[in-house]
Amino acid sequence: MERSKLIRIGIVGYGNLGKGVETALSQNPDMELKAIFTRRAPETISSSSKVVSLDDIQKFKDQIDVMILCGGSAKDLPEQSLMVSTHFNTVDSFDTHAEIPKYFEAVDKQATKHGNLSLISTGWDPGLFSMARLLGMSILPEGKEYTFWGKGLSQGHSDAVRKVKGVKHGVQYTVPNEEAMQLVRDGKNPELSVADRHQRVCYIVPEEGADTDKIETAIKEMPHYFKPYPTEVHFITEEDFYANHSDMPHGGTVFRSGISGNGAKQRIEFALDLESNPEFTSSVLVAFSRAVFRMHQKGKTGAISVFDVPLGLLSPKSSYDLRKELL
Amino acid sequence: MERSKLIRIGIVGYGNLGKGVETALSQNPDMELKAIFTRRAPETISSSSKVVSLDDIQKFKDQIDVMILCGGSAKDLPEQSLMVSTHFNTVDSFDTHAEIPKYFEAVDKQATKHGNLSLISTGWDPGLFSMARLLGMSILPEGKEYTFWGKGLSQGHSDAVRKVKGVKHGVQYTVPNEEAMQLVRDGKNPELSVADRHQRVCYIVPEEGADTDKIETAIKEMPHYFKPYPTEVHFITEEDFYANHSDMPHGGTVFRSGISGNGAKQRIEFALDLESNPEFTSSVLVAFSRAVFRMHQKGKTGAISVFDVPLGLLSPKSSYDLRKELL
Repeated sequence: MERSKLIRIGIVGYGNLGKGVETALSQNPDMELKAIFTRRAPETISSSSKVVSLDDIQKFKDQIDVMILCGGSAKDLPEQSLMVSTHFNTVDSFDTHAEIPKYFEAVDKQATKHGNLSLISTGWDPGLFSMARLLGMSILPEGKEYTFWGKGLSQGHSDAVRKVKGVKHGVQYTVPNEEAMQLVRDGKNPELSVADRHQRVCYIVPEEGADTDKIETAIKEMPHYFKPYPTEVHFITEEDFYANHSDMPHGGTVFRSGISGNGAKQRIEFALDLESNPEFTSSVLVAFSRAVFRMHQKGKTGAISVFDVPLGLLSPKSSYDLRKELL
Repeated sequence: MERSKLIRIGIVGYGNLGKGVETALSQNPDMELKAIFTRRAPETISSSSKVVSLDDIQKFKDQIDVMILCGGSAKDLPEQSLMVSTHFNTVDSFDTHAEIPKYFEAVDKQATKHGNLSLISTGWDPGLFSMARLLGMSILPEGKEYTFWGKGLSQGHSDAVRKVKGVKHGVQYTVPNEEAMQLVRDGKNPELSVADRHQRVCYIVPEEGADTDKIETAIKEMPHYFKPYPTEVHFITEEDFYANHSDMPHGGTVFRSGISGNGAKQRIEFALDLESNPEFTSSVLVAFSRAVFRMHQKGKTGAISVFDVPLGLLSPKSSYDLRKELL
């Protein structure tokens, strides 16, 4: 391969994530976007990139090095990953934690059979947070791990509040409990449930004439989603909603609080503060696509996770430059 | 290889780092310490482990899987790494940044020739901080990187204050500038020199009758070490010194503050808070020894850095368990 050859990327699915990948690619001059594949009618998609029907994906077999799968974990990815990994290397952000072993096995079988390489479940959680957990656990085997999410917009919880009767628009932010975080930073190694670590803050635009007390109660009493958590419900105007609650910020912190051999307290902290959750996830997918391309070039096939990728392969720089500039 | 076989480790050099490796190994049940190698007379070393003269290291050729080199970067490692990598896989914490390319090349040549694998320059900086920088730069190519060190004891600066006339005992702590850190957290992307990012705080026990004003001036005016920095000098008693300044805490934070494709601000933060700098470095060396053992088993030889290691190899857990439990 010539060194100057660009890594040719395809995007499958053009929602928030797919759009994020499209813009992230413009920040990476060693990669080029060849086409976006969609189930919708291509002519209905507004993009300056080439948009193609998903039905025609096989025609691009020799034109694309890595396909970035940008569908949802619940319905799209289980099927799409098998179809696409028959013909292409893939990268995805499958995040249904309980299903990961089964998903990995299915993709591994398919990708191995067809000589392709598929990296599953990357992004930031699963993804970078998983790497931080692994690093912490491996370096400090005696210790406790804590993950705090937020402040950030939770899609699942926002969907849940919008289903409450009388809610016209609604969003839910997951907010880490600062006092609990401070206990961890102080090395207290507290026992903290997920509800101890987080609170939930909702902003609701009620339907005209709706009973806001009833809405508030319905939200706060919702099992699993809200009942175990300290929950705040704020009622706002539609104007306020569109002005201040249209972004998708997120983030969080993974701590490993441990002791080394003679009892010294040691803490590792990995934190993200993201103005745009989908754009950041997209940026991670793009960096890992570079690694997938290179690993496949060296003959690697089957399914892999972030744990299988040497970090140097994420960078466009040479190994020599990385050692010289970053070590 | 049987799954139950322990990874057999040797330690070369028995200072703070070597002692830290010895205790770190006791936290890792899949590894065993076979012997400590020293240039001193073995019988003068107080340890419950087996202590052997460095001259006899070759006798252990088939008894040790990875040698952890715990000597200093200035004088010990350049020579020891070449000698030891002739016979063994090695891991070291070589940290003379400017010399890394040359060091890598020399070790690579020797290790390759003899079929061994040598991981150079691991620990936390270089090491984990290097990984954080690489990750940040790869995921957010448009952005700025900031490293803040401390609060922590700097060996080099402590040595420098102890050379000042009239100083009986002295330590120097590098302290990150909190205001500068806040500017970074606020996404201001400030231009910050290393002196803007840090202050230096010294605790000095003066010799009896010494002129403390002169000591303070001599420290604050010392070129490179102190002059460019906001520096505080505190005079304390010998009792206070031994009670409160005998530990070796350190730490720091690596930030990547960037923007994704549509201008959203995104921040990655990796921080360490360490009660014992040498013990933490030792814990990192031990985890990377596990990876070196495994990569060598798969046929890898030559020199590598932290950028070449898939993170999963740092953990004693199987790939399946890592995906199931940590993704």
